[in-house]
Amino acid sequence: MFKHRVAAIYPRSGPFSNRFGVPVLAWLVVVGIASVSEAAASEHPRLVLTTDGVVRIRAELGGVPLFDATLAKVRAEVDAEIARGIETPLPKDFSGGYTHERHKRNFLLMPQAGALFQILGDEKYAIFLRSMFLQYAAMYKDLPLHPQERSYARGKLFWQCLNDANWLLYASQGYDAIYDWLSAEERRRLEAELFRPFADFLSVENPQFFNRIHNHSTWGTAAVGMIGLVMGDDDLVNRALYGLDDAGLDLSARDNDGGFIRRADDGAGFLANLDKPFSPDGYYTEGPYYQRYAMYPFLMFGQSLHNAKPELGILDYKDGVLLKAVDVLLRLTDADGEFFPLNDAQKGMSYLSSATVAAVDIAYHVGAGDPHLLGVAAQQAQVTLDDAGFAVAVGIRDGLATPYRRRSVNLSDGAKGDEGGVAILRDAGERQSVVFKYSAQGLSHGHYDKLSFSLYEHGTEVLQDYGLVRFVNIEQKGGGNYLSENTTWAKQTIAHNTLTQDQQSHFGGKYAVGSEHHSVLAFYDASDPSAQVISAFEPNAYPNSELRRTMALLSPSWSERPILLDLFRVDADGRHQYDLPFWFLGQHLATSFPIETPPAPRVLGTDNGYQHLYVESVGQPADEQAHFQWLRGGSFYTLTVAVTPGDNWLFTRLGANDPDFNLRRDAAVIVRREATGSTLFASAIEGHGSYDPVSELTRQPRGSVAALRVLHDSSDYTAVELVGRSDRRGLFVVANSDTHPSARHRLRAGDNDVEWRGPFHFKEVNQ
Amino acid sequence: MFKHRVAAIYPRSGPFSNRFGVPVLAWLVVVGIASVSEAAASEHPRLVLTTDGVVRIRAELGGVPLFDATLAKVRAEVDAEIARGIETPLPKDFSGGYTHERHKRNFLLMPQAGALFQILGDEKYAIFLRSMFLQYAAMYKDLPLHPQERSYARGKLFWQCLNDANWLLYASQGYDAIYDWLSAEERRRLEAELFRPFADFLSVENPQFFNRIHNHSTWGTAAVGMIGLVMGDDDLVNRALYGLDDAGLDLSARDNDGGFIRRADDGAGFLANLDKPFSPDGYYTEGPYYQRYAMYPFLMFGQSLHNAKPELGILDYKDGVLLKAVDVLLRLTDADGEFFPLNDAQKGMSYLSSATVAAVDIAYHVGAGDPHLLGVAAQQAQVTLDDAGFAVAVGIRDGLATPYRRRSVNLSDGAKGDEGGVAILRDAGERQSVVFKYSAQGLSHGHYDKLSFSLYEHGTEVLQDYGLVRFVNIEQKGGGNYLSENTTWAKQTIAHNTLTQDQQSHFGGKYAVGSEHHSVLAFYDASDPSAQVISAFEPNAYPNSELRRTMALLSPSWSERPILLDLFRVDADGRHQYDLPFWFLGQHLATSFPIETPPAPRVLGTDNGYQHLYVESVGQPADEQAHFQWLRGGSFYTLTVAVTPGDNWLFTRLGANDPDFNLRRDAAVIVRREATGSTLFASAIEGHGSYDPVSELTRQPRGSVAALRVLHDSSDYTAVELVGRSDRRGLFVVANSDTHPSARHRLRAGDNDVEWRGPFHFKEVNQ
Repeated sequence: MFKHRVAAIYPRSGPFSNRFGVPVLAWLVVVGIASVSEAAASEHPRLVLTTDGVVRIRAELGGVPLFDATLAKVRAEVDAEIARGIETPLPKDFSGGYTHERHKRNFLLMPQAGALFQILGDEKYAIFLRSMFLQYAAMYKDLPLHPQERSYARGKLFWQCLNDANWLLYASQGYDAIYDWLSAEERRRLEAELFRPFADFLSVENPQFFNRIHNHSTWGTAAVGMIGLVMGDDDLVNRALYGLDDAGLDLSARDNDGGFIRRADDGAGFLANLDKPFSPDGYYTEGPYYQRYAMYPFLMFGQSLHNAKPELGILDYKDGVLLKAVDVLLRLTDADGEFFPLNDAQKGMSYLSSATVAAVDIAYHVGAGDPHLLGVAAQQAQVTLDDAGFAVAVGIRDGLATPYRRRSVNLSDGAKGDEGGVAILRDAGERQSVVFKYSAQGLSHGHYDKLSFSLYEHGTEVLQDYGLVRFVNIEQKGGGNYLSENTTWAKQTIAHNTLTQDQQSHFGGKYAVGSEHHSVLAFYDASDPSAQVISAFEPNAYPNSELRRTMALLSPSWSERPILLDLFRVDADGRHQYDLPFWFLGQHLATSFPIETPPAPRVLGTDNGYQHLYVESVGQPADEQAHFQWLRGGSFYTLTVAVTPGDNWLFTRLGANDPDFNLRRDAAVIVRREATGSTLFASAIEGHGSYDPVSELTRQPRGSVAALRVLHDSSDYTAVELVGRSDRRGLFVVANSDTHPSARHRLRAGDNDVEWRGPFHFKEVNQ
Repeated sequence: MFKHRVAAIYPRSGPFSNRFGVPVLAWLVVVGIASVSEAAASEHPRLVLTTDGVVRIRAELGGVPLFDATLAKVRAEVDAEIARGIETPLPKDFSGGYTHERHKRNFLLMPQAGALFQILGDEKYAIFLRSMFLQYAAMYKDLPLHPQERSYARGKLFWQCLNDANWLLYASQGYDAIYDWLSAEERRRLEAELFRPFADFLSVENPQFFNRIHNHSTWGTAAVGMIGLVMGDDDLVNRALYGLDDAGLDLSARDNDGGFIRRADDGAGFLANLDKPFSPDGYYTEGPYYQRYAMYPFLMFGQSLHNAKPELGILDYKDGVLLKAVDVLLRLTDADGEFFPLNDAQKGMSYLSSATVAAVDIAYHVGAGDPHLLGVAAQQAQVTLDDAGFAVAVGIRDGLATPYRRRSVNLSDGAKGDEGGVAILRDAGERQSVVFKYSAQGLSHGHYDKLSFSLYEHGTEVLQDYGLVRFVNIEQKGGGNYLSENTTWAKQTIAHNTLTQDQQSHFGGKYAVGSEHHSVLAFYDASDPSAQVISAFEPNAYPNSELRRTMALLSPSWSERPILLDLFRVDADGRHQYDLPFWFLGQHLATSFPIETPPAPRVLGTDNGYQHLYVESVGQPADEQAHFQWLRGGSFYTLTVAVTPGDNWLFTRLGANDPDFNLRRDAAVIVRREATGSTLFASAIEGHGSYDPVSELTRQPRGSVAALRVLHDSSDYTAVELVGRSDRRGLFVVANSDTHPSARHRLRAGDNDVEWRGPFHFKEVNQ
């Protein structure tokens, strides 16, 4: 092999222009894209495994434990599949069904077999791949659309183009690995009968799939771009990067998840999918579950461009957003590495997933060599069989890994970082994680959950975000697709730990309306580990009401574990009903006030998610504060709420109007305030003590918060007093209007004259 | 120190006689008990830590990792408590409350501080113990009964004598450790003011607690016996072994769990508590949860007698039942070491509990040195700080441990082994465990669950036994005591995977009636790992009905995992309603027939547990067989039932009439047959495939059983055909009357003429 590359300015004018004109892109105008000559095309593999990389890997094989172990495992799997024989059944099933799972298994094998061929030099893997490709080529040219008609963009091998794009992206890696080994005639045939028509099908024949801002299009463009890089086909590469010129798509068209196919200001192509859904911080607006899914094509195509077209500087694009995104993805995990289920997200998905393995490996390899990434990789206990995975395995072998640590962080949302965001507050011991969402809608997978939060202790959900209503790839449940309860329940406001007004979801549950708005950061300050605060407001979720929530993770000296203070204000015209649920997980223990069970459970409402809730029990606290205690994962929890006379507490159970048993029977306590104008919900949530079913020992089953008193509440300030047992106290004051970091404030709150600087003030008052 | 022991025949006539005259006891008549002279009394410690043991431990200290680690951990704990200072608050609380937990913590420290003193020779531990004992002595003499009045036998330090007995048993070990170190005057004072009155309080002052067959009395007698051994007080030792002479107890009196205080044929004392609740196999009639609790006093006193009075041969008593019981206890665990929750049992309790650590250590030390016990001990990762724990730690250090393996087993119940039993069927891979209960009532903690079963895969419950309704030591839940729903729900028949006739619990839910009966073994045969069968019948649970259940764990070649075949016959006079529930855990996936959700959930009944059940959905299968699929712990499960026309399937949810949220919201499917005479419920349950939320890969989501056909059912035989996919079949025939192992049978079943020998026959028929 030899290197010979002709650099040329790609003729298309203003290649990396987008419709925002973000200045960070200016550097690209000069560089452009190098077209690939026939000579260069012979340098394969060139995507994520490179000719140089193969040389390095072969040299150290047997001396890099994690790489060697992964190789052995993959080899055993591929050998078993080779022994079984190649099956390419006629497409028929939804995900979870046989034909779907078989074709999926096939494409997953392609990069594996390719890597085995390159690394081990054993031709049987190349022969296996060639046979499989030829079998697909024979099938593909006459293949009609998939018989299942549910998708807005039906595939051929799969029921949706998305999965066909998966196929092509994986196939491109396999093809890359055997490209030089194949005869020219074999390449010609595969390209003419399989890869090129496949790429055209995903792009020009399905612009509604290819030319949008969505994780689907990220897969589509990356797949087309990667096969283009292998084939040395600049048309495909450019189509991938910039999208189709004018696809004439209807701006009112929706996909089968209810998302817009296109919006007026959308760009198209791979780069537009970096521009728009990612904030400058690297937060992906669909949320971490889909970010994880999209990270694979983002990084595989990114890495491939970096290798095959280094002059593009793709890793510096948008101030290095690709690698920032990997960092953000890891930050959005609990202590077990599971992604916070923001928006549509299946619980249990974690950074152990193969997409995240690839993301971490690439980020380490092409990034600054962060040793914390090696810490994650060590937990993943596998690497990719390419240059990146090899670098990681070498780093771990050489003892460079350090444990991954999780810190508080505030992440902006929106292409320019000005559409709200997501904040995580974490205590110094990394025990508590408060996940606070004040973001934009999050495209078609977004939920109506402005100012919602969830609470974790280590890897245990304490106050949950429901996630989605879907059983991914489980055929018995609607073909593994989204179920109707995802719309009627999971997206609705009442399914989240935030405020519902008049039993209506935010923005009337209308995607078009929600997509025009976002919440607004008031301030975020995690500089003092013992008093970390996030405050945001939402002006548009309800007409003429402004919601404002301040959450403070406070560690007074008299509490063993931090206390989460939650101040939720509503500034409203007129009188409304407000419901603030706490979706606790675990065993209901006790309330500080009597509760009554109705003779039969009644359904709480007729729509907006309320139709799925039974009322199991109700109570009206008579004291100034109400407590509710539960037990979860060996720890006690107490919710303390400052009572407004007339407050109703509803203990509800999910599961009404669920004929197919698609919903979990989870519980919430809803604090309900009726016929009320502007008001404040002041709450404190704390974990305390422990219970062990083996020793049966109980420690500190009572919380440390005896009372929570509202001393002041106005549009300018909110002041509350936390009263601990033994009468030790903490005073917390937050500014609701002037939140400038250097603003000076003065307030008489209860018996206290408080002066402070900055948006909030917390001090202990021991009497 | 020197040894000097005077052997003497204890004057009481027929010391080890009991009211059964079991011949195994005859050996004791000659030997009797050696009384302890003053001289021998100076040889301390003598209970579980011995003077010889201390010498051996000291010699190897620092070279036995597991012992050293335990010692370091205990030392840190005790040092922290010494630094904190001794607290002996005035008793006031139920379990979970401060005074209860503090006194409990205190007594747990006593053997620990004693062992540290003996092993490390550091006087501070002796001083700490002396101070604590003196503080208790000062308090004890004027202490009234505990103010909480719930118990049938109120304690002084605790709300029930049981916990006072815990205290004395632990205290005896601490006292033993510092006995020689104390001055004679200190000993005199402690014995006169604390230990002797304490022992008298637990025995002569509370005969209703001391003189019965119950785990309470095991604790009481062992505590009194152990303090007697330390003090060299034969009166106390004999009182412990044989009970009080005539306590004049009312035969109709009940304890606060509803158990009889005494029955006419009860013996009394420690030995009677070995005679009666244990079967010759070592099964403890209350079930493993309480066996675990009782094993600690059984083995600590047993080991103490073995050391201090070896001439008694306590370990050979009843053919070595003490050590057999340890073996049985371990067999009654799932793959995670958690005890099967038979009868009243809190889930999560496992062989990691300290009681089981002690049991395993002692069984290894005084038994045959079984290396599997070391395998368990290695998982426990701690040992007792005494001779037994040291021996275990040495064994592990020396590499003798082998992994603990779980096999199928059939355990008889009843003092003579003739009162039914419990069988566990396990596949060769130790994946499935079928726990089948055909036992006696199980004393006051027994449930009305004749012929019930539960199913585990590894450590995951698939079809559950509910366990108890109690939150042990959690004060918020009724002081940590049994809750009323334990009676109204957990004990009732419908709470179990067995048949309820006419919505009545077995024996009318009457303890007095249930206690007179037991189920009967038909046969148990686990000799062929691919067809293991247990069959038993229950003649008395319902008047004029006989229940008979045969469960077979079958591994036909065409099924990836074993299939559990369940044949439940009822032979009845008249027509009845039969309910057979399957308490599945996990996510409802699909049924093979339509189900309908009533507009509002209705409560299924008014009593016998039915008042706690909501009907969420109902269906009437029209085909010959009905399937129900669910997902649990990453595995799919399918229940297939042969349909009788008119069968109703009720999908029910627990939680009605539960004002305090004491019940879990668990689900069952109940197969209901109305107005039916004798009948057969034929079912097959299988686990298959897998689902992983990280890879989102689905494997084999459909079961292998396409159909289950009843070919024959009579009082003589039941024959069914299992039909796999691809039309592969299996024929299973069981004899219902002549179950002799060598009986020859012949039956025409469907198209088959079957001849076989023995109680059952299984063969594959591939067509």
